Amino acid sequence: MMTPNELVREKLVQATDVLREKDIDLWLTLARETTLMPDPALELIADLDVTWNSAFLVSRDGFHSAVVGYFDAVNVRALGAYDRVVAYHRGIGRHLAETLDWYQPRRIAINHSADDVAADGLTHGNYLNLLRYLEGTPYVERLVSAESIIGAVRGRKTVGEVTLIRQAVATTERLFDEVEDFVRPGMTQRQIAEFVHRRIDELDLGYAWPKPFNPIVTCGPDSAIGHAAPGDVPLQVGHLLHMDLGVKQAAYCSDIQRMWYVLAEDEESAPPDVQKAFDTVASAIKAGEAALRPGTPGYEVDAAARRVVVEAGYPEYMHALGHLLGRTAHDGATTLAPQWERYAGTCERLVEAGNVFTLELHVPIPQRGIMSLEEDVLVSADGVEYLSAPQRALRYIRP
Amino acid sequence: MMTPNELVREKLVQATDVLREKDIDLWLTLARETTLMPDPALELIADLDVTWNSAFLVSRDGFHSAVVGYFDAVNVRALGAYDRVVAYHRGIGRHLAETLDWYQPRRIAINHSADDVAADGLTHGNYLNLLRYLEGTPYVERLVSAESIIGAVRGRKTVGEVTLIRQAVATTERLFDEVEDFVRPGMTQRQIAEFVHRRIDELDLGYAWPKPFNPIVTCGPDSAIGHAAPGDVPLQVGHLLHMDLGVKQAAYCSDIQRMWYVLAEDEESAPPDVQKAFDTVASAIKAGEAALRPGTPGYEVDAAARRVVVEAGYPEYMHALGHLLGRTAHDGATTLAPQWERYAGTCERLVEAGNVFTLELHVPIPQRGIMSLEEDVLVSADGVEYLSAPQRALRYIRP
Repeated sequence: MMTPNELVREKLVQATDVLREKDIDLWLTLARETTLMPDPALELIADLDVTWNSAFLVSRDGFHSAVVGYFDAVNVRALGAYDRVVAYHRGIGRHLAETLDWYQPRRIAINHSADDVAADGLTHGNYLNLLRYLEGTPYVERLVSAESIIGAVRGRKTVGEVTLIRQAVATTERLFDEVEDFVRPGMTQRQIAEFVHRRIDELDLGYAWPKPFNPIVTCGPDSAIGHAAPGDVPLQVGHLLHMDLGVKQAAYCSDIQRMWYVLAEDEESAPPDVQKAFDTVASAIKAGEAALRPGTPGYEVDAAARRVVVEAGYPEYMHALGHLLGRTAHDGATTLAPQWERYAGTCERLVEAGNVFTLELHVPIPQRGIMSLEEDVLVSADGVEYLSAPQRALRYIRP
Repeated sequence: MMTPNELVREKLVQATDVLREKDIDLWLTLARETTLMPDPALELIADLDVTWNSAFLVSRDGFHSAVVGYFDAVNVRALGAYDRVVAYHRGIGRHLAETLDWYQPRRIAINHSADDVAADGLTHGNYLNLLRYLEGTPYVERLVSAESIIGAVRGRKTVGEVTLIRQAVATTERLFDEVEDFVRPGMTQRQIAEFVHRRIDELDLGYAWPKPFNPIVTCGPDSAIGHAAPGDVPLQVGHLLHMDLGVKQAAYCSDIQRMWYVLAEDEESAPPDVQKAFDTVASAIKAGEAALRPGTPGYEVDAAARRVVVEAGYPEYMHALGHLLGRTAHDGATTLAPQWERYAGTCERLVEAGNVFTLELHVPIPQRGIMSLEEDVLVSADGVEYLSAPQRALRYIRP
């Protein structure tokens, strides 16, 4: 397992390649007081907090610089990732301009984006500060958006990152096994969620999204669907138990959904309506997987899965088939989503090797609840690798 | 105790007054995906997260509006704080422009600031989006910085806010009492910090600043000073125990430092060098308190305390006497700090009634450790009220 500093160095090697590919000389991240106002790009290239205004300069030639406040310099040096660390006492302006003079960049990418929040970490006030620092230099005219760089650097997972996502996924699968041992008919959503919360605390894990909605526990047809907090609906025989759980372990996330059916005393397997729904959802995910190849726009992957659901006679799911997964549960811009207005700018983006996506969808079953699965998969040049052990059969809760 | 929604409504009443005082018609907060990229001002006026681009419009006439994505609207309506909530499906632009037409504002304040990070929550990409939404309207020319508004609204604590800070302070003082019962000579910094972490978990509290540095525990002269993580230095007879602890309870913070001296078997009280240091630090804090009046620039308050330390023959502390305290430990721009370059733009600001400040400073004692106290105080029109019960005498650890 890589240390956080090794991960940062690995991402910087990758960022250098991305800069060459996009023909950008220098990528400048300017941030301050990051515990109050984080720049989401900073954790990729320098996993630490800074206080005074700080510039991280990633160069296409692989020689990276940082210009940071005196008290932050020791932490930045400890990263072992920046070849030149300038520690200032009074103000960053002059030192930043001198550092740019040294690089003589033709194009400088800065963190702003109309559509991708993960690439829009530069605040407007600090953008105005930057213009002031660069006043009278040629660099003011050379600023461009770092959107495509951040999208690529965040989206293409390195070997070290995939190892950590794998670890979070494996932990989550063990938790699902524990849930299966724990759950009995009659327990409420809340009791089941509280069991998971206790185990997450005991294992000293974090949450991939906020705890009140994590896990989502759906017990039968009377539970609220979607991003709702677990309530007092009890689990009953003949109903479905659905859980959507994501942990954060060593800074990386999982996001998985699993399904159980609650058998009656005299039942050995699920009834046909339940089995048909499971088979449809599992097939739709396999259809999405088959379409998930580098160079494919996200909406085509979604369409492949959506078709299976509609052709089986179910209403189509009103969300995206998948999103990127990494340091956050929704980890960057590319979505596997239909061409609806709210996915404009993200569903047209092309799948890339190294992307880790969720594949997730559901169908409703009258009187039983929802049937919803979610897998985590890695895209490579020649196919898809499941990071989760995909659920190929219904699981059962016995009375 | 007020609910979070009552607190928001109280802050909005206050914000309306501030807008009149500053002669601004409308204060516009524009934010999206706030779990990834928070705007620090948003929690004051709408303590929730939003996903799609969202506009919160606070008006000098007290009639407030919000323009938010369809899925976020239910949460915004539940605040009971916005008189008009527009829920959009496709895009915010047209609805935002129409809402501005309705207000016809002459000056619109938006969240950017060169110096105050807490007032610089608008990202540059979203600023460009805003210009696009307002293209062809007169409002583009009417945008001004909300820096002075946010400074006042964050800095002037309401009755509800002070009640919550008081609660966090009282909790912290009980924890100090527990620490005193727990600590024995020979324990390490780490053991003492772990005891506090366990109690914070058991009480379901949060941290006012990150857990690795909270509490700061200094045991005698061999501990690293400042923002260092607790280490393996054991507490010894004749040494000082210092703790800097801040909890976050119901979204509000405390930040307090307390001092103990470890008595030898045959000692009944601290030796003269220790007592002199304690008296000096306590007197300096009282001198700061005496200077802390509405209308006084921060640097004058610092100077009053600093003088006491220097006149007693100690080296002056290389930090500020105090900072604002509230939802965050460093809660806004005004500092009680010397006129050094790094405090430029914050130490000249005037103290206001309703401000909650820390008063904190230390002196070193050779062979014993540091003597450092910190109190939390509320400024009112006619004086200062201690929210913490100020430490007026050394506390003792008995062997």
